[in-house]
Amino acid sequence: MTASSFSDAFPNSRKVTLDGARGIRVPVREIALSGGEPPLRVYDTSGPQGADVRQGLPAPRLPWILERDVERLPSGPSTPVDAADGLIPAGLQRPVYRGRGPVTQLHYARRGEVTPEMEFVAIREGMNPEFVRSEVERGRAIIPANINHPEIEPMIIGRGFAVKINANIGNSAVKSVIEDEVEKLRWATLWGADTVMDLSTGKNIHETRQWILRNSAVPIGTVPIYQALEKVGGVAEDLTWEAYRDTLIEQAEQGVDYFTVHAGVLLRFVPMTAKRMTGIVSRGGSIMAKWCLSHHKENFLYTHFDEICEIMAAYDVSFSLGDGLRPGSIKDANDEAQFAELKVQGELNKIAWKHDVQVMNEGPGHVPMHLIKENMDKQLEWCGEAPFYTLGPLTTDIAPGYDHITSAIGAAMIGWYGTAMLCYVTPKEHLGLPDRDDVKAGVIAYKIAAHAADLAKGHPNAQAWDDALSKARFDFRWEDQFNLALDPVTARAFHDETLPADGAKVAHFCSMCGPKFCSMKITQDVREYAAALEEKSVEFRRRGGEIYVKERQEA
Amino acid sequence: MTASSFSDAFPNSRKVTLDGARGIRVPVREIALSGGEPPLRVYDTSGPQGADVRQGLPAPRLPWILERDVERLPSGPSTPVDAADGLIPAGLQRPVYRGRGPVTQLHYARRGEVTPEMEFVAIREGMNPEFVRSEVERGRAIIPANINHPEIEPMIIGRGFAVKINANIGNSAVKSVIEDEVEKLRWATLWGADTVMDLSTGKNIHETRQWILRNSAVPIGTVPIYQALEKVGGVAEDLTWEAYRDTLIEQAEQGVDYFTVHAGVLLRFVPMTAKRMTGIVSRGGSIMAKWCLSHHKENFLYTHFDEICEIMAAYDVSFSLGDGLRPGSIKDANDEAQFAELKVQGELNKIAWKHDVQVMNEGPGHVPMHLIKENMDKQLEWCGEAPFYTLGPLTTDIAPGYDHITSAIGAAMIGWYGTAMLCYVTPKEHLGLPDRDDVKAGVIAYKIAAHAADLAKGHPNAQAWDDALSKARFDFRWEDQFNLALDPVTARAFHDETLPADGAKVAHFCSMCGPKFCSMKITQDVREYAAALEEKSVEFRRRGGEIYVKERQEA
Repeated sequence: MTASSFSDAFPNSRKVTLDGARGIRVPVREIALSGGEPPLRVYDTSGPQGADVRQGLPAPRLPWILERDVERLPSGPSTPVDAADGLIPAGLQRPVYRGRGPVTQLHYARRGEVTPEMEFVAIREGMNPEFVRSEVERGRAIIPANINHPEIEPMIIGRGFAVKINANIGNSAVKSVIEDEVEKLRWATLWGADTVMDLSTGKNIHETRQWILRNSAVPIGTVPIYQALEKVGGVAEDLTWEAYRDTLIEQAEQGVDYFTVHAGVLLRFVPMTAKRMTGIVSRGGSIMAKWCLSHHKENFLYTHFDEICEIMAAYDVSFSLGDGLRPGSIKDANDEAQFAELKVQGELNKIAWKHDVQVMNEGPGHVPMHLIKENMDKQLEWCGEAPFYTLGPLTTDIAPGYDHITSAIGAAMIGWYGTAMLCYVTPKEHLGLPDRDDVKAGVIAYKIAAHAADLAKGHPNAQAWDDALSKARFDFRWEDQFNLALDPVTARAFHDETLPADGAKVAHFCSMCGPKFCSMKITQDVREYAAALEEKSVEFRRRGGEIYVKERQEA
Repeated sequence: MTASSFSDAFPNSRKVTLDGARGIRVPVREIALSGGEPPLRVYDTSGPQGADVRQGLPAPRLPWILERDVERLPSGPSTPVDAADGLIPAGLQRPVYRGRGPVTQLHYARRGEVTPEMEFVAIREGMNPEFVRSEVERGRAIIPANINHPEIEPMIIGRGFAVKINANIGNSAVKSVIEDEVEKLRWATLWGADTVMDLSTGKNIHETRQWILRNSAVPIGTVPIYQALEKVGGVAEDLTWEAYRDTLIEQAEQGVDYFTVHAGVLLRFVPMTAKRMTGIVSRGGSIMAKWCLSHHKENFLYTHFDEICEIMAAYDVSFSLGDGLRPGSIKDANDEAQFAELKVQGELNKIAWKHDVQVMNEGPGHVPMHLIKENMDKQLEWCGEAPFYTLGPLTTDIAPGYDHITSAIGAAMIGWYGTAMLCYVTPKEHLGLPDRDDVKAGVIAYKIAAHAADLAKGHPNAQAWDDALSKARFDFRWEDQFNLALDPVTARAFHDETLPADGAKVAHFCSMCGPKFCSMKITQDVREYAAALEEKSVEFRRRGGEIYVKERQEA
């Protein structure tokens, strides 16, 4: 449980690449098996290993980006940036590009172009590149990929593809060390996070983000209002469109791949939350609500939405339209305020699409099981099938300390119903800031939820993994069982607690039942019998079991 | 996380009793709250605290039992019992009773009698006693309560009531200490196990069970075939009806409340499992399959089913009809073998009912989400609405070490669909024997699943708990949040990792967001604004928000 590198975390696994045209190299993790079984290849998010964090990762997308209609900006940021000297090493500085017009994946999809990113994603998902393009064109999937984030290995978010998971990291005013956050990023992606959101709100937000972006092979999302609020001294009423706009540009130039924008929190919806059990629980939502009420004006994110789109189109930053009025308790699920905002999200999707900007919609939150499906149904109906991206939902409020579990239940269900990405919840949710162990616990719980959803949706690659593990279990290939597990080190450690001897790893039984009671061992015997008796059983079936009923009743 | 007593585990909670007629005293846990909030009362399974394990618990049911048509048997067991001298202290020995005819709760329900057990259960669930009686009469619910287990606090299993959870304990040939198992029983019920199954297969099965029963305030279930197999030296082919019958009587006289009986594993079904990914994974199922095939005879549990019913009726042991052919992998879910057995379970239910014996049906196992509901639907249809009792189901096979989570997802869903009791799965499932921490992790994950199901089903008592916790959260009553949690000690420990100071427990923010970004704090401000602006917002709504659209488009 202290594994920190790819090889420690995944014994008997190695990275291989699936090579496509145009220099495309898609990483997969190949798990070697014993007993003559073929190796299993699984989706891999861990990114290039062994890079110096002060130099950042290689930039495989750069040649693709430079072929687009982009201009290199003069060095230095275009907007005022409050960055402390010396916190960003030279090795983490990069030239900055901007599109002369829209340079989004949606823009190219609409022109019928299969970009290298789409081809990468097609290989990664085992899908046809043209299908990927058409899903992006229809707005049913997004490929978050800022032109200033050339380090990423492209991935796709849409309900026709594998369900993805996001891990939140970020420092806060209470606790803050840049290196810790980079380590959390690497840790989260090692275990399977498909995207990472940097929710920093403390000091050195700009610098922390630069370190994260340059070391991330997965798309990075942010909530720009957090930094904008810091810029105005933490006073929500003092926020301005200009401060927010500059923040968007600053972050887009650094390479952030998607922005959470709470543009659906309208002034007239705010009073709807006053009688709730837990009011407004989204940080961004509450900031905008306060701004709206104190100025008695409409949300400036809504009134300036076209300008926001124009900025995002020039860097290919995707929208993650925030659900600022999501329920914060079981009691508040699916209420008027929540659905009022969702409808506005649908309206805003259309505007984003008009500007060629990719968009997904954020969803709840806290929802009891019987109300989960309504969220998905309404999002599909009102939001034009844009990808849905939910936080959990938690299916009960009574288990703080275990909200990775309360929410994995809801996440698996809504993933099955069609949600494209699941934002993880760690055991520390509602209680404190997640540490390394919490990040891992959250990621594993959500990999379970996402994979369970893929199975239920019938994703073509999903069941092979379950089958490989089940077969290893039935064959008593213990090492293969461990190596095929989402978390091999923990699986092995648990086994070894009761049967530590090496011999036990080839034993045809285990500690649960001991040798005499092993059903799998007995089944092997049964198979031999069964083969011999196949003939007789046919005879039995023909007689329809009648004799047994008779025997029993006479007994 | 090392809490071992009621008061350590649940700070600020105390046991109170709800008193009914006939000396009925129903325990509930009352959680005291601050800020003028009324205390919250929750279902309690922890049983009487502080008893000497060598003396056992008090026997509140004894007077009720003695009023029935029962006879006291001569001292000493009626059947040969292989018990080592001195392992059962005198304080754990009890007189043994047998009914002169059926003495089951179903028998009395059919006579229109509301037993004290039914009244107890009605108070415990907040339901009408007559409703309890009628559900038992219809076979839709069971009250497992052997007349030789007078120590229990009666509970009910049925889909009209709160979803229950079972915890498995028991030693095995590999590891075996009697006291450890008693401690696991106390630990599991402290955290919320509604019933406990003793799955011991090693030495001293009889003695272990006696210790467990005399110290258990919850119903105890067993799988008698395990002990019967020990009696014939572990050779499945050598099992006989006589050895099994004697084991049933031995265990019924000790006070076991329900028996898992794999009477639906018919000879003709066994070949159906030969081509499965994981064959037969039920221990009892594989033992019976092997017996059937090697003798080429029908399962003796099926052919002697009427006799089994007669024995069980005389002590009020309930059936938990085993699902010996349940799927052991995602691949094998909902297959021919599984459903063939389920249909036979339905047939056997009717025979049990004919004998006035209470019955529930066991269900899977390993099932992907999209196939879960079919299990519930078919069980309802084929099994006459008898309570369903499932193991999980696990919704994926790729996460050994985390199967409490893979299965809590399936358990919550099938609980919502109507399953009455959920058999827990611990993190050690498939890997090793659960220790104390694993038992707790399994119970908590299943309390979450059961409560999430109660919420979704609309159980009248469920949501008050979520509401109390959510309100405490919104009011920043940190101590109340911890005390209302399923696991208060863990919740507090997680909070204190980042904000250990006592002052932080009255702070109106927490470590996640810090003071400036606290959405709940901002919401308090919003409420004040909102109250003042209510008038204006009405005006806004009347204008239909038109001006905002205009503003945005002009911006």
